[in-house]
Amino acid sequence: MWRTTGAAAPGQRIVGEPGTVRIAVDLLGGDQAPDVVVDGALRACQADPFLHLTLVGPADAADAVISALSPVDRQRITTAVTSSDTVRGAVRAVAEGAADALVSAGDTAVTVLAAARQLGRWPGVRRPPLAAVLPTLTGRLILLDVGSTVDPDGETLAVHARLGAAYASVAHHLTAPRVGLLTIGTETGKGDRLRRAVPALLTARPLPAGARYAGLVEGGDVVSGTAADVVVTDGFTGNVLLKGLETAYALTGPPTPDTEPPPRAALLLGVGGTVVVCHGAATGPDFAAGIGFAADLHRRASVAAIADLLRYSEVSHD
Amino acid sequence: MWRTTGAAAPGQRIVGEPGTVRIAVDLLGGDQAPDVVVDGALRACQADPFLHLTLVGPADAADAVISALSPVDRQRITTAVTSSDTVRGAVRAVAEGAADALVSAGDTAVTVLAAARQLGRWPGVRRPPLAAVLPTLTGRLILLDVGSTVDPDGETLAVHARLGAAYASVAHHLTAPRVGLLTIGTETGKGDRLRRAVPALLTARPLPAGARYAGLVEGGDVVSGTAADVVVTDGFTGNVLLKGLETAYALTGPPTPDTEPPPRAALLLGVGGTVVVCHGAATGPDFAAGIGFAADLHRRASVAAIADLLRYSEVSHD
Repeated sequence: MWRTTGAAAPGQRIVGEPGTVRIAVDLLGGDQAPDVVVDGALRACQADPFLHLTLVGPADAADAVISALSPVDRQRITTAVTSSDTVRGAVRAVAEGAADALVSAGDTAVTVLAAARQLGRWPGVRRPPLAAVLPTLTGRLILLDVGSTVDPDGETLAVHARLGAAYASVAHHLTAPRVGLLTIGTETGKGDRLRRAVPALLTARPLPAGARYAGLVEGGDVVSGTAADVVVTDGFTGNVLLKGLETAYALTGPPTPDTEPPPRAALLLGVGGTVVVCHGAATGPDFAAGIGFAADLHRRASVAAIADLLRYSEVSHD
Repeated sequence: MWRTTGAAAPGQRIVGEPGTVRIAVDLLGGDQAPDVVVDGALRACQADPFLHLTLVGPADAADAVISALSPVDRQRITTAVTSSDTVRGAVRAVAEGAADALVSAGDTAVTVLAAARQLGRWPGVRRPPLAAVLPTLTGRLILLDVGSTVDPDGETLAVHARLGAAYASVAHHLTAPRVGLLTIGTETGKGDRLRRAVPALLTARPLPAGARYAGLVEGGDVVSGTAADVVVTDGFTGNVLLKGLETAYALTGPPTPDTEPPPRAALLLGVGGTVVVCHGAATGPDFAAGIGFAADLHRRASVAAIADLLRYSEVSHD
């Protein structure tokens, strides 16, 4: 199905360097692929000397990339030719053990489907959500879903609340994450049909990692961070808010200008691997940040830690 | 049903001063009413010497307000006691001709219902939307609905597109407003069920005021303003995005810091009067800005001009 160029063939583990991470990158994902993908790959390798990247794409694009690389870069950036969708090829690299994580800015629905099929879903997760990290006035906040499930039911949001709570515990080292439900007024009964149904589900069930349901929150709370550490919403609203705030922060600066902004990339939660999704409009620096984010998640074994938290919680509470 | 204190009794027109505007203000609307309402009323009167305000509320609150006012302020700020909901009393003041416009930070659903019943709706407008004005990198943009209709159908969004186009023409002096549909990706077929159904409706029907349908836009386009002058969405998504962006701009400054920010208040479109809605969390300066906004709309006869545009369009195209 695919052939590789350079050093990192599928199934061939690169060993010997401490902290080495192998990331599969969807060469054709994004509005300005493959140029910004390659730009992002080069930037990511410059920032992290232990990174090995496999750019997954069709033969002609892969050959063009390799021929343009310097001999030094070819030591760490290889290509893999896939006959299927490039994101499927990148997921397969992770499924077959040729890569530790993948990054794609391709169609979200295709990425989620490929990841769910080839990497598997965790028990109880029918709809894996995309979780973004946003800067707030008080630190960082996890917003999910930001585009995977646009017409969820209440049950799906309740599952996403559990995933987000575990993610906040692992990624932001919170002992008791506060999980809020995004709506348009904090009085009981506010919001649309979906939002009126969900609070009962969130109140009734235990959350993992010592998390607690913090009630209804509004759009402004995603900026301040004062009401919740994890904000749960449908993928439509979450995507609109995320893109609005990211664009605003890009123009005006983040709420806390003196801290490093989180990557403009989201983690797909609930699948058996580390899958990072960039925006279709991602720039080279965005791809580099997404690749660095994926590498960091792998080095910290974050996805396994999140899975562990959820399993422990199920054992002890259900 | 209600009695008034001071100079402006219902039905009694205040005349003689050029540009005088009489605004009815819901004394109990908002999380911190009546204190911030009174604060906003005093600020508004300081900013505009031709403003007369009627604060509508229950007897005890109204009496407390009046007794605390200075003799000078009592010349321009009066109270009206209502036995029903305060927002209904404020709407009644407009319906009966005692006020030119009203401002409320009360429950949106109650305000919309009272306005629709007592002031009437324009032909074809089943669900009057709330339209907010946001600062952008290139000027100003109208976002609607921001909280009136949380579960709209496609037909409702198509009507809101017409209302928003006429509003942009009148308020922002645009000769050919661009109307965009808010979604989560600009490729055809992106978005949830509602969003997939609406583009056909917007393409098929003429918009008033020379406006044209500019296609699908994303959250970031509401910040930049480069893709559309009017952005149509459901009241849930619109409210979440509005509150997120307003909070971000309050912390980091607007996209164009050298221009006067628009008021954090929305105009209810499609009813037979000038109805301005503030957030529940409105501050005194927010109320003052909302009152000033209502006065400006009345002085320019904006609501009548919007209604005229829509009727002309119907006559010429339908």
